[in-house]
Amino acid sequence: MKDKNRVIKLGFIGCGTRGVGLLNTIMAVEGIEISAISDVQEHRMQKGLEAIRTHEKHPKEYPVDLYANYKDLLARTDIEGVVIATSWNEHIPIAIASMEAGKYVGMEVSGSNSVEECWDLVKAHEKTKSPFMFLENCCYGQYELAVLNMIRQGLFGEVVHCAGGYQHDLSNMVGMLEDSEEFGHHQRSYHHMKRNAELYPTHEIGPIAKYLNINRGNRFLTLTSTASKSVALDIEAEERFGRDNPLWHHHALGDIITTVLKCAGGETVVITHDISLPRPYSRGNTVHGTKGIWSELRNSIYIKGTSPDHQWEDMEPYLEKYQHPIWKEFLNSDITDGHGGMDYLTLCAFVESVRNQTLPPIDVYDAATWKVICCLSEQSIALGSTPVAVPDFTNGKWIYREPAAEGIYALD
Amino acid sequence: MKDKNRVIKLGFIGCGTRGVGLLNTIMAVEGIEISAISDVQEHRMQKGLEAIRTHEKHPKEYPVDLYANYKDLLARTDIEGVVIATSWNEHIPIAIASMEAGKYVGMEVSGSNSVEECWDLVKAHEKTKSPFMFLENCCYGQYELAVLNMIRQGLFGEVVHCAGGYQHDLSNMVGMLEDSEEFGHHQRSYHHMKRNAELYPTHEIGPIAKYLNINRGNRFLTLTSTASKSVALDIEAEERFGRDNPLWHHHALGDIITTVLKCAGGETVVITHDISLPRPYSRGNTVHGTKGIWSELRNSIYIKGTSPDHQWEDMEPYLEKYQHPIWKEFLNSDITDGHGGMDYLTLCAFVESVRNQTLPPIDVYDAATWKVICCLSEQSIALGSTPVAVPDFTNGKWIYREPAAEGIYALD
Repeated sequence: MKDKNRVIKLGFIGCGTRGVGLLNTIMAVEGIEISAISDVQEHRMQKGLEAIRTHEKHPKEYPVDLYANYKDLLARTDIEGVVIATSWNEHIPIAIASMEAGKYVGMEVSGSNSVEECWDLVKAHEKTKSPFMFLENCCYGQYELAVLNMIRQGLFGEVVHCAGGYQHDLSNMVGMLEDSEEFGHHQRSYHHMKRNAELYPTHEIGPIAKYLNINRGNRFLTLTSTASKSVALDIEAEERFGRDNPLWHHHALGDIITTVLKCAGGETVVITHDISLPRPYSRGNTVHGTKGIWSELRNSIYIKGTSPDHQWEDMEPYLEKYQHPIWKEFLNSDITDGHGGMDYLTLCAFVESVRNQTLPPIDVYDAATWKVICCLSEQSIALGSTPVAVPDFTNGKWIYREPAAEGIYALD
Repeated sequence: MKDKNRVIKLGFIGCGTRGVGLLNTIMAVEGIEISAISDVQEHRMQKGLEAIRTHEKHPKEYPVDLYANYKDLLARTDIEGVVIATSWNEHIPIAIASMEAGKYVGMEVSGSNSVEECWDLVKAHEKTKSPFMFLENCCYGQYELAVLNMIRQGLFGEVVHCAGGYQHDLSNMVGMLEDSEEFGHHQRSYHHMKRNAELYPTHEIGPIAKYLNINRGNRFLTLTSTASKSVALDIEAEERFGRDNPLWHHHALGDIITTVLKCAGGETVVITHDISLPRPYSRGNTVHGTKGIWSELRNSIYIKGTSPDHQWEDMEPYLEKYQHPIWKEFLNSDITDGHGGMDYLTLCAFVESVRNQTLPPIDVYDAATWKVICCLSEQSIALGSTPVAVPDFTNGKWIYREPAAEGIYALD
């Protein structure tokens, strides 16, 4: 076994807004060097380099090589792990190439384009045995982890139903179309323009899948998806550009996409994609079991026999009581970057897995299962909300799979 | 035209818990006499009579006749209107008989057993021309009416999505099985035991249908419905009776039933039936449009350009500002009975329609459209969440139907 205290060399592929954001966050993680970064655009690599060299709190002087072609980065034998934060459509091809190059892969979240590409991801892992972690940061959210704790301690009884959403007004993303040289057709706005689907399911389905032991004793069987009309992004584009401007486009994406999943264990899950209409941000999480209910939207909880009859209680005292150990530690640290700590903790989990060469807390089966909801919802909507089957990417191993990850970052 | 100040004689069919409750409420309505009551059980009729004779605030001494057979009540030519508050399965047959007897019908809410019985209700009205009002009290809820006001004034912009639920822990209804002589198989618990469906959609779908102009320029096209496993009512029955007791039954009803509707206008509606699990009561209403969102669960609102960026506002100042005229009047009255005023206002709307012989604010097409969701959800669940078509009970008239009801109780 390798020295556990060694400095790990990592590569960073994709230095757009999200990539540089993650770079800034990972600088606070101990015992690593970002030895190489890669992006197809030189000026973005420079931004990445700047993030390393001139980081506000943790500027680094170690050698960093820049590669316009990520394959040259993957050829470096001294690099143990790579973080992939490119545009959505490049995630899977680069992850597969990285696994084939023997790297420990950390891949940013997005939806999917086909069932097949999700299988490809799984098969690349099974063939290469290269470990793969899906960097779903909301699994390390403060509330999500506390609720996981509460579920494991039986506070909600038998969990019967969960809900969540990506409810985030991104209508101003329409403005990115003005900067096509920078963003091109790789940008997320093109998905909004061309696709009618639950484009971004993982932030809520990730934590929920962990609550419900998906791929470890349970699995998603089927889903239906229903799209409302698409009006809000067209209005936004009209207000920005006018209808006569070539930048004006109709958007295929329904303003609200509702997806309902049924689990092998009989649980139901409702997720909502809601990025076009005005609203305050929420992940809209709900957990409902035979003993109680948590509502993120209300920041409230009700536990039968504990809460006053028929009355919500404030979530805060419960959060404090059931705070997850890694959050207790994090709150005592001086780290402030990255979506209120979630990004940092996710990257810590990744780095720890690479260092110890252990199985990651969010694996390739999780990634495939959560990502595939996107293209399946697209199919269901196109077929008039017909139920579609969710593939079993474990090929039956979900029936008896045990919790995999060890250590404090484990989610199972 | 008849004298508008005359005292109207009404008949009351069904004197169970709900019937007597409504009787108590209707006593405060001016200008009526409950001249006849009917129930298959004598002791329930006595309770109804007692409600009239010894009402706390409005005891009445006028003649009241009791009929074990409702057909004898319907034969009374002096009775202009009837209120039907029997058990669920009797609503439609009695309503049809009442219309055939020329009465103005007010029918309590429930779901449905078949598409056909909903058509029967519509056809009886079309054949007899007897006016029919569906007594959906939540259409007259304080928040629901204020939000209707806000929608009509354009506060939410173009409404794209609505949600609601019947989220009411009724698990203790399992206890009714102990009193089978009183309740028998007519009771609601039997629906919970035998049926897996959105059993009770009208409290949320009624107000939402009015928001979305259903049957008047818009209509529900399709729905899918998905049921979670059924565990909570079985647990309740086990705790009460034990598994060996003949009163213990497995319940077919999923703990959470999620139904997603798609409208001709492109809007989506999500409704939730949630009566088995512990939780505080909520109708979970949400209205989301191109300019804002209302969340009943949070008692909050967000209006783009008015609310602080990305921040919910308290609903209360908006409630005051957009208070519906009938609620302003009601709050100045001394009426306190009946689900916080909703029942009273619904009965006022009914009585006013009977008195003026005008079209009711909630008509037979509304009733059929809202009720049918119950049996359609049952079909969709049984078929694995397959989308099913919602009938057009107006046979095309929805395309051009104008607002019907006049007066202060109008909802269109």
